[in-house]
Amino acid sequence: MPEVSVKEAERFMVESLVAAGAPLSEAKAHADLLLHADIVGHFSHGMNRLEFYINNIKLGVCKPNAMPVVLKETVATAWVDGCDGLGATVGNFCMDLAIKKAKECGVGWVAVKRCNHYGMAGYWTLKAEKEGLIGMSFTNSSPVMVPTRAKQSANGTNPISMAAPAMGGDSIVVDMATTTAAMGKVEVQIRKGEPIPEGWALGPDGKTTTDPEVAFDTARLLPLGGFEKTSGYKGFCLSTMVEIFCSGLSGSRSTHNIPPWSHNQTDAPNLGQCFVAVDPGCFAPGFEQRVAECLQHWRNLEPVDPSLPVLAPGDKERNNAKITVARGTIIYPQSQVESYQRMAARIGVRPLEIVNMQCSK
Amino acid sequence: MPEVSVKEAERFMVESLVAAGAPLSEAKAHADLLLHADIVGHFSHGMNRLEFYINNIKLGVCKPNAMPVVLKETVATAWVDGCDGLGATVGNFCMDLAIKKAKECGVGWVAVKRCNHYGMAGYWTLKAEKEGLIGMSFTNSSPVMVPTRAKQSANGTNPISMAAPAMGGDSIVVDMATTTAAMGKVEVQIRKGEPIPEGWALGPDGKTTTDPEVAFDTARLLPLGGFEKTSGYKGFCLSTMVEIFCSGLSGSRSTHNIPPWSHNQTDAPNLGQCFVAVDPGCFAPGFEQRVAECLQHWRNLEPVDPSLPVLAPGDKERNNAKITVARGTIIYPQSQVESYQRMAARIGVRPLEIVNMQCSK
Repeated sequence: MPEVSVKEAERFMVESLVAAGAPLSEAKAHADLLLHADIVGHFSHGMNRLEFYINNIKLGVCKPNAMPVVLKETVATAWVDGCDGLGATVGNFCMDLAIKKAKECGVGWVAVKRCNHYGMAGYWTLKAEKEGLIGMSFTNSSPVMVPTRAKQSANGTNPISMAAPAMGGDSIVVDMATTTAAMGKVEVQIRKGEPIPEGWALGPDGKTTTDPEVAFDTARLLPLGGFEKTSGYKGFCLSTMVEIFCSGLSGSRSTHNIPPWSHNQTDAPNLGQCFVAVDPGCFAPGFEQRVAECLQHWRNLEPVDPSLPVLAPGDKERNNAKITVARGTIIYPQSQVESYQRMAARIGVRPLEIVNMQCSK
Repeated sequence: MPEVSVKEAERFMVESLVAAGAPLSEAKAHADLLLHADIVGHFSHGMNRLEFYINNIKLGVCKPNAMPVVLKETVATAWVDGCDGLGATVGNFCMDLAIKKAKECGVGWVAVKRCNHYGMAGYWTLKAEKEGLIGMSFTNSSPVMVPTRAKQSANGTNPISMAAPAMGGDSIVVDMATTTAAMGKVEVQIRKGEPIPEGWALGPDGKTTTDPEVAFDTARLLPLGGFEKTSGYKGFCLSTMVEIFCSGLSGSRSTHNIPPWSHNQTDAPNLGQCFVAVDPGCFAPGFEQRVAECLQHWRNLEPVDPSLPVLAPGDKERNNAKITVARGTIIYPQSQVESYQRMAARIGVRPLEIVNMQCSK
């Protein structure tokens, strides 16, 4: 698979967004959001999505020059209109505001309507973590999750993220869809030609399927927990909690009314998002030591399989980032690079420079 | 199974707690907490636990006369010392404080150390819901959850609850352990003589077991999601998030250091708990209408099995409460009533009056 230097991937994304009409500052911010996903190994949320944003901008669904507006606020809260701005523009505005409020009074709770997709939820909570705070972020999205007992999808993958700092530069990062598996994982099984486990998805008859193509086409992912007997209703409950924080507080579209994300949509998605920051300094001294002690306890647990060590939340992504940064390159699927070279020609941007066409990783 | 009037169950719990040394106000508050669990059908968290509290009081581990103390606060936050008080004493103090702060500035975030068990997490969030607010509550507990890949338990069932009001007196109530199943459900399978589903628990060899007695003795419940391939690490992540909010912020014991809850413990549990309230009035108008619209959408989804309608979070408990209140009685297992009649004799309280010894329900 083709290898691209991290700098070059960033250059390409910034120039593409600028060519589509984004101001340089917002293009840089949005490229950083997508690059982070590629660096930590969540490729589905990285450059893979660049063309969606470009096409959404071209069709006026995403407005890259728009800046969010505060509609109502207290010392601890803000209700924001995202004005259909870029995911990074709205995310930075809202998380910066939550951080500012947390520094002033201990908590900042910001809900925002009229949003576009904001990439990895964990990118936003890490912004708070870097300031010594607990961060949380939530977004709703178009229906792909089947509530327990239902035939049809009704909720999005509605992710939950929380990050917190630990002593010595360590951190804990929770970042998870409230479905059992993200659709990207179903796609991976299609490419491998392998079945999906029972408990990931339903077929068109409302029964479990292990065929990844059927699962992809039907778009009925089971909530975290899977079937009712293994407590799938808890994953559904979590997705409804996210919904209350997102559309409930912000007045955006509810998850069941959000159109699927597409290259040719003409209707603004009007997602709801929620950003929270909490200052541990307002509570018991020694927060970062306690978090570090928990992380160490979990990492040091004896594993069932000695070749598979126990990981603390965020360890996998941190390890991926170390490898990517040391190598200096990101390895993309051949088909993705080809599709981006075609896009580059179409929007008049210098194509991606490939370091190594044959990387086997 | 024996049937007891709701009033009589309450009378018995109040008098037992008073006999153990609790002031009447706190005994009433704690009885209300346990009664709520029995009324909504979560019997494991109801009178079932009364004897634990009584014995913990007798041994000085729980101090029923202690009142919580605020150690540090801002307009939006408070760090509280629970002083080993009764679960209801600490819960009421902290949720009332979170509600007061939310009404003042939009958010109240309260973390508390030195707690005893606080019953159903959802009892606390409903306090906020009744005030027109979003409530959240979290507690840590002794290790019964095996982190993904690990052999040994390290985290508690670490529950998450969120409740919010909806138009017309309706509400959404999420209240869930972050394990796949609570230990109470394993006990139910033992009583039925039926196996537990794969994905609930590990045996002493670190492999899955379907034997409920092995699961009960080993106390290694899988996190929500079950195995790694069905995203069990997400349930583990949720339990760590709860841990950050509880021991992280409050400075209580970390979950892996909490002793198992027992009748003869001499060491205070020093649990950490967290209570949050958010005022939807600080955000977009129409919150309760939007919540109601989501609830209706979910309830009206076509079910796979027409005899099993889709439920919104909290519906099952609301339905159970309606049935209990209409009947006016609670039906307890024979063994539980016998054990409480023995306790009554021991502590000098009038025994439970049974309405109907032979109720078949």
